[in-house]
Amino acid sequence: MSEKFDAVDVIRTKRDGGSLDPAMIDWVIDAYTRGAVAEEQMSALLMSIFLRGMNAAEISGWTGAMIRSGSRLDFGSLRRDGKPLPTADKHSTGGVGDKITLPLGPLVASYGVAVPQLSGRGLGHTGGTLDKLESIPGWRADLTSAAMTTQLEDVGAVVCAAGADLAPADRKLYALRDVTGTVDCLPLIASSIMSKKIAEGTGALVLDVKVGSGAFMKTRDDAAALARTMVDLGRDAGVATVALLTDMSTPLGRAVGNAVEVAEAQEVLAGGGPSDVVELTVALAVEMLEAAGVSGVDPANALADGRAMDTWRRMIAGQGGDPDAALPAARETDVVVAERGGVIERLDALAVGTAAWRLGAGRARKEDDVQAAAGITLHAKPGDRVTAGDRLMTLHSDTPETFSRARESLNGSVTYSETPASPIPLILGRVA
Amino acid sequence: MSEKFDAVDVIRTKRDGGSLDPAMIDWVIDAYTRGAVAEEQMSALLMSIFLRGMNAAEISGWTGAMIRSGSRLDFGSLRRDGKPLPTADKHSTGGVGDKITLPLGPLVASYGVAVPQLSGRGLGHTGGTLDKLESIPGWRADLTSAAMTTQLEDVGAVVCAAGADLAPADRKLYALRDVTGTVDCLPLIASSIMSKKIAEGTGALVLDVKVGSGAFMKTRDDAAALARTMVDLGRDAGVATVALLTDMSTPLGRAVGNAVEVAEAQEVLAGGGPSDVVELTVALAVEMLEAAGVSGVDPANALADGRAMDTWRRMIAGQGGDPDAALPAARETDVVVAERGGVIERLDALAVGTAAWRLGAGRARKEDDVQAAAGITLHAKPGDRVTAGDRLMTLHSDTPETFSRARESLNGSVTYSETPASPIPLILGRVA
Repeated sequence: MSEKFDAVDVIRTKRDGGSLDPAMIDWVIDAYTRGAVAEEQMSALLMSIFLRGMNAAEISGWTGAMIRSGSRLDFGSLRRDGKPLPTADKHSTGGVGDKITLPLGPLVASYGVAVPQLSGRGLGHTGGTLDKLESIPGWRADLTSAAMTTQLEDVGAVVCAAGADLAPADRKLYALRDVTGTVDCLPLIASSIMSKKIAEGTGALVLDVKVGSGAFMKTRDDAAALARTMVDLGRDAGVATVALLTDMSTPLGRAVGNAVEVAEAQEVLAGGGPSDVVELTVALAVEMLEAAGVSGVDPANALADGRAMDTWRRMIAGQGGDPDAALPAARETDVVVAERGGVIERLDALAVGTAAWRLGAGRARKEDDVQAAAGITLHAKPGDRVTAGDRLMTLHSDTPETFSRARESLNGSVTYSETPASPIPLILGRVA
Repeated sequence: MSEKFDAVDVIRTKRDGGSLDPAMIDWVIDAYTRGAVAEEQMSALLMSIFLRGMNAAEISGWTGAMIRSGSRLDFGSLRRDGKPLPTADKHSTGGVGDKITLPLGPLVASYGVAVPQLSGRGLGHTGGTLDKLESIPGWRADLTSAAMTTQLEDVGAVVCAAGADLAPADRKLYALRDVTGTVDCLPLIASSIMSKKIAEGTGALVLDVKVGSGAFMKTRDDAAALARTMVDLGRDAGVATVALLTDMSTPLGRAVGNAVEVAEAQEVLAGGGPSDVVELTVALAVEMLEAAGVSGVDPANALADGRAMDTWRRMIAGQGGDPDAALPAARETDVVVAERGGVIERLDALAVGTAAWRLGAGRARKEDDVQAAAGITLHAKPGDRVTAGDRLMTLHSDTPETFSRARESLNGSVTYSETPASPIPLILGRVA
């Protein structure tokens, strides 16, 4: 017995409602990462945490232990014109049609703040930023550390895959939580997100915490509690952290998928695009710039005057992509029409996300491929008036046999009213 | 997806406080037994059961599913003199110095009721019946099914190792519970015990549910709840089941170990032995005989007149043992004396059990061997008056380096008073 603790003692402590002390947490995360605590033991501990909770000190200790399970990036040496380059990052808890990272990184970078976005791939009904960008011919996510630094100093914006050496405990834990019914647990969600983001070495961090049917958090209260916990974790780790609570009851914008979302992001960068995507992009840019020390600017200007688009084109080209290439189009499309007339009251985010996933835009298992061109274009959104037979959405897929399953998940996803309802605000709150 | 359910759905149902329906339980036990539900998934489910509980219908379903995971014995064809032979079995939830099975089986068998005892080996501070009997030169636990039947028809008593095909789900679950902090859970304890006992095919069953420091159940209320649950499970499965609640705050008798307990059992079979061992043996024999349809007899007679001893000798000889052989003696002994004078108020069962285990009488891991001669002889018990320097116990071991660790676990295990206290009754209750 050269181990400092016994796994069963740690499990029993949490099982019986006690709190885990920092040394216990450090040990259990380290021992799990190196295989000395078995998967079935960690699973019992995770379920105990799910049902008994963790206090703020435990969540902080758990997050710190996950960060220490791997290496931590440091962008403190970034320079432009000989001066230190501030960094800011954004993390969204995941939503449907959430392509905000695409215009946001270049937009913030165009104000002299470096945005080192380390992103993941989509799983389930929410898409992944890397999957979206990979629909651009030639673009690739795997940059060397040196190439990443160069691009940050030259262009200011980069989107890469997170390395396996960042918070490896979180990677292992996430896979375990996925098969053991321990995903939807505030302390585990908060520590998972923040351990990765803190390990990624950003100086400032803005969190976009989604609320609604298409999000992890279904209620505003749950989302606010998660935001509060994450903001505290960031602050404790020396990262200037702010969170916005934003609506995810309906998809963001009018495109859900991969290439279709890139196209919409390019519209926004060209000064157009759906108003909700523009509103959220600008709001998050303001927060990132302020957190990084740049205040008193209106990022809408850089969308209007082409600066953000220039940065986007340099970012895409820097990672091997051709910003002028035609995006892939799906082999088949299928149009869903309105069954009746009226004002669209609700267009359910989860249903649309699930339909896009079934069309091939997302993956059910990590090893699956995604279709670049699969997805959904929305022709009407809540608040719009339609008449029976009007086009509601177009489904895109290379595999037309998926249309019927996609339509199934759209059943009941649209509700109508006779009179215009007051729209749900997009930005529901701010936690700093 | 050819599986009927998804493991994560089953986990979530229990996690969120719902009840598992019979089809779900059947599936999860079967899928776990064949490996389609992973250890880490069952671990999460077990912790959810630990913290959320199971209702009577769930416990019954869980027990039934574990029985159906393997084969079920049937002693309905046993005959003696052409007539059907009733069967009765006893199960103890485990205690220190609990050698009751040794005299009890032959005693009940001497009244024409067959006792097919399928026993286990000890783990931790409670001893195992097979470990005790294996201290008799030549005795072996592995009988063929045919040899077992013959011995039951001829002698009436047999003690064997339970086959791997009886409730294999329970075997797998028990090993998992041991490493995941999910052992001390009423629904899981009750279903584990009763699935094995029902699968073993006895017609009547008497449960000895221990209460006190040396037992799983530390309070009378917990023990009564466990007894009630198990009696109901037995009745539902068509097995006449009765439970006695008995004290385990202090060891049973004056011998704790393997060979030393066999010697004490032989004293009882010879009409002598410590009064507590005799009292419990007779009380359990009365219950077993009544449950098997034999009433109005006083089993104390068969201890006094040598009938039980005759059956014991035939049982031991039938399994290759020599009932006249000298039992092994330990290479070294160490005497613990009273530090002060007074009446012994308390002699803690858990401390004595742990000391005996450390001396080599028990095992820490399944694959460990036990020492036949290791153990403890008690020279004084609660209620006895001693003077400082009197012998309290003798420690026996082939590995004298274990004496100091054994003495450590005995620290504080004896308390004294000036006046005789009223003794704790041995039999605390009955559940039928």
